[in-house]
Amino acid sequence: MKKTVKKKEIKPKKKATIILHSGDFDKVMSAFVVGTGFLSMGIPVTIFSTFWGLNALTKKGFKKASLSKMNFFGLGRWMINLKMKKYNVASLDTLAESFIKLGGRMIACTMTMELMGIKENDLREDLITDYGSVGTYCYESSDANITLFI
Amino acid sequence: MKKTVKKKEIKPKKKATIILHSGDFDKVMSAFVVGTGFLSMGIPVTIFSTFWGLNALTKKGFKKASLSKMNFFGLGRWMINLKMKKYNVASLDTLAESFIKLGGRMIACTMTMELMGIKENDLREDLITDYGSVGTYCYESSDANITLFI
Amino acid sequence: MKKTVKKKEIKPKKKATIILHSGDFDKVMSAFVVGTGFLSMGIPVTIFSTFWGLNALTKKGFKKASLSKMNFFGLGRWMINLKMKKYNVASLDTLAESFIKLGGRMIACTMTMELMGIKENDLREDLITDYGSVGTYCYESSDANITLFI
Repeated sequence: MKKTVKKKEIKPKKKATIILHSGDFDKVMSAFVVGTGFLSMGIPVTIFSTFWGLNALTKKGFKKASLSKMNFFGLGRWMINLKMKKYNVASLDTLAESFIKLGGRMIACTMTMELMGIKENDLREDLITDYGSVGTYCYESSDANITLFI
Repeated sequence: MKKTVKKKEIKPKKKATIILHSGDFDKVMSAFVVGTGFLSMGIPVTIFSTFWGLNALTKKGFKKASLSKMNFFGLGRWMINLKMKKYNVASLDTLAESFIKLGGRMIACTMTMELMGIKENDLREDLITDYGSVGTYCYESSDANITLFI
Repeated sequence: MKKTVKKKEIKPKKKATIILHSGDFDKVMSAFVVGTGFLSMGIPVTIFSTFWGLNALTKKGFKKASLSKMNFFGLGRWMINLKMKKYNVASLDTLAESFIKLGGRMIACTMTMELMGIKENDLREDLITDYGSVGTYCYESSDANITLFI
């Protein structure tokens, strides 16, 4: 009798990595919105935060973040926060905390820490899962299919 | 007699998604140039436009878009349009229309529409193929190999 | 006797392409740091430099590049160069030269050269391996799994 061999379907790995280089309010927000989006689909996400993106993860970072462009529609940081509340869009704090709770990995770039004089104690340690160098990012990204630089 | 089974070659799917977050003239241009480039190779492309990128798709958006940096070579918006004509580079309008004609998908981010108070009627509806949330973007990107954040 | 057929493990191709659109010091630096990172793992990398990114590759480009944001921590270009020396982070020149030595491919965007009036002679030809159009970029990216827009 012939044995029926069930062929394994070959599914390419789904994996996302994001370099968060910008510290602009709207870009940090996008990183966390997209990140939690993938996580909720079961796709693992690693954010590697560098330069102004890491700076946004310091203790007062979210409060100091400003929009990347201010002059359209007179849309300022105050206005956008108001609308986020009105339309039930989660705040930056809630988004970032959800990202971690859903299993997202957040790597603080150690080279940036040295260059910008940021210490572990300066960072929101509840939002950092690892400290690593570019090598960690490249290793994580080597088998990813979704790679963003924000 | 043995049956010759032709093995199917396994080709990974080729697919591109672009988040168009910026509304700068040169970046919007890049999104459409790259997008039509992939489409003309038979690779499907989805652009998900958010924040200033969606703002550029409003009715007067292309006309108001400015360069992301102005002070190199005194290269202004006026100058670049002139050179685009001289060197036969398609205008933003032509590029965007070609993208749609070639089968590109353009999703307007509904969260951005709420946050920035943009209505369907404000947008260049000839350039929008869908309205969607981050979930639509993540679903589209899950099996893409080319993912850009512009 | 049964012949043992060793199944070939299917490994998806690993390949990275980067569009370097920005000419900001920190972003050009990131492109080369990430690029050399992948190269040192044996992953081929192509950088396609356009707009301000190509402008940074002109003969005095690196010297004129400024930070994308200046007002955090009073961190200026002078300061960051000082810290790069102190913490043994390679300079932009060294990073770019390593990228080429490790086999990185650097394509100068010919459309940008026309639009911005940049001639081959204006560019650091030691850092350019090819001249090409968006078609070259799209072809290179079609089978890449890592694609960044910086």
